[in-house]
Amino acid sequence: MTSQKVQVVEKIMDANDQLAAQVQTRLDASNVFGINIMASPGAGKTSVILKTIQKISPEFKIGVIEGDTAPVTIDADKVTALGMPAVQINTGGQCHLDAVMMERGLSALDLTGVDLVIVENVGNLICPASFKIGTHANVVIASIPEGDDKPYKYPNIYRGIDILILNKTDLLPYIDFKMDYFKKGIEALNPGLTIFELSCKTEEGFDDWIEWLKSKVKTHQSR
Amino acid sequence: MTSQKVQVVEKIMDANDQLAAQVQTRLDASNVFGINIMASPGAGKTSVILKTIQKISPEFKIGVIEGDTAPVTIDADKVTALGMPAVQINTGGQCHLDAVMMERGLSALDLTGVDLVIVENVGNLICPASFKIGTHANVVIASIPEGDDKPYKYPNIYRGIDILILNKTDLLPYIDFKMDYFKKGIEALNPGLTIFELSCKTEEGFDDWIEWLKSKVKTHQSR
Repeated sequence: MTSQKVQVVEKIMDANDQLAAQVQTRLDASNVFGINIMASPGAGKTSVILKTIQKISPEFKIGVIEGDTAPVTIDADKVTALGMPAVQINTGGQCHLDAVMMERGLSALDLTGVDLVIVENVGNLICPASFKIGTHANVVIASIPEGDDKPYKYPNIYRGIDILILNKTDLLPYIDFKMDYFKKGIEALNPGLTIFELSCKTEEGFDDWIEWLKSKVKTHQSR
Repeated sequence: MTSQKVQVVEKIMDANDQLAAQVQTRLDASNVFGINIMASPGAGKTSVILKTIQKISPEFKIGVIEGDTAPVTIDADKVTALGMPAVQINTGGQCHLDAVMMERGLSALDLTGVDLVIVENVGNLICPASFKIGTHANVVIASIPEGDDKPYKYPNIYRGIDILILNKTDLLPYIDFKMDYFKKGIEALNPGLTIFELSCKTEEGFDDWIEWLKSKVKTHQSR
């Protein structure tokens, strides 16, 4: 019975991966670069997205897909207030986005003139790691107040990602955060991973992330 | 097809609830009060548990069940270093504890002389809300750096809990956290919920939580 159950799970994952590949093809056809932002609740996903929009526009137009577990449009409203298209996916209590939801979100988003789609995944350090959604890059945002031991406790989320943003560095003076211990944990899971240490509040370090993102969008569009 | 699927899920939940009731009966038979601590990663679950042990012993003996998604015993080691029994449940990547895991954890824990069992659930603001594990009280730890909008974005976790600890109040001077907005959100989900505002770091407000907990253990043991 156990092995039969495992087979079913693998089929579901296969189906998700197949649909994720279709989503990426669709993004490519629209000449849109897509990133998937994952993080614990409160790490600063929305703040990073809003600041990124402010820094990267009008050079690039950004569309945002907001994953939420509840029917509140707090985050999507903030994006549209900045003049960018946004849609909200209410997962109905589910703890992650999957490729089906992503496909529906993308269908609802007006991609006219859009260069970059940012997906704000559900705030969760566990389940989003298991579901590809078809974006070109996966980004995790960690934050100083979460503590330096998170790579050791929630290892899966840091594996296979392309960028790690370490946010809220402005709080370093007030928190016992051992940077070496944190980075050692990350290096063991994802050797050579690029880490952008920044503060959304003070903007210190933020431009390095923006330069990386701009470069990626340009490379994708000139491919 | 859809309704058939829902029926299966409901059966699983029923089985979990039944096993949770058995767990509580077992705790009662050992005259042990049990609490389930849920929170986002980095809200301070382990810090609150360690400080609680220091404050409440030797008057009460505490056993701890640590839920982790990875086979690291960082937290359980810290508990045993304080002379209290601890077991670790490695969920193998699963994002919550359920009554089956709790039953196994309890079986592995030496309850000799134990008055209180504290369960540290997996760091996740979503899924743990859906699975009873048989404890007498459910506690959520929120923290100032997570932001004041979490009750609006992750409502399910705040419903039906008995206590909310709002940790890291020492960081209030450095973070834009609207206390009224946060509490308004909580009140809408769980009217009259007791909130302990405290700082594990400075210990400000911590004794109120300890007094509540001592009172609950005593009442349970004299029932």
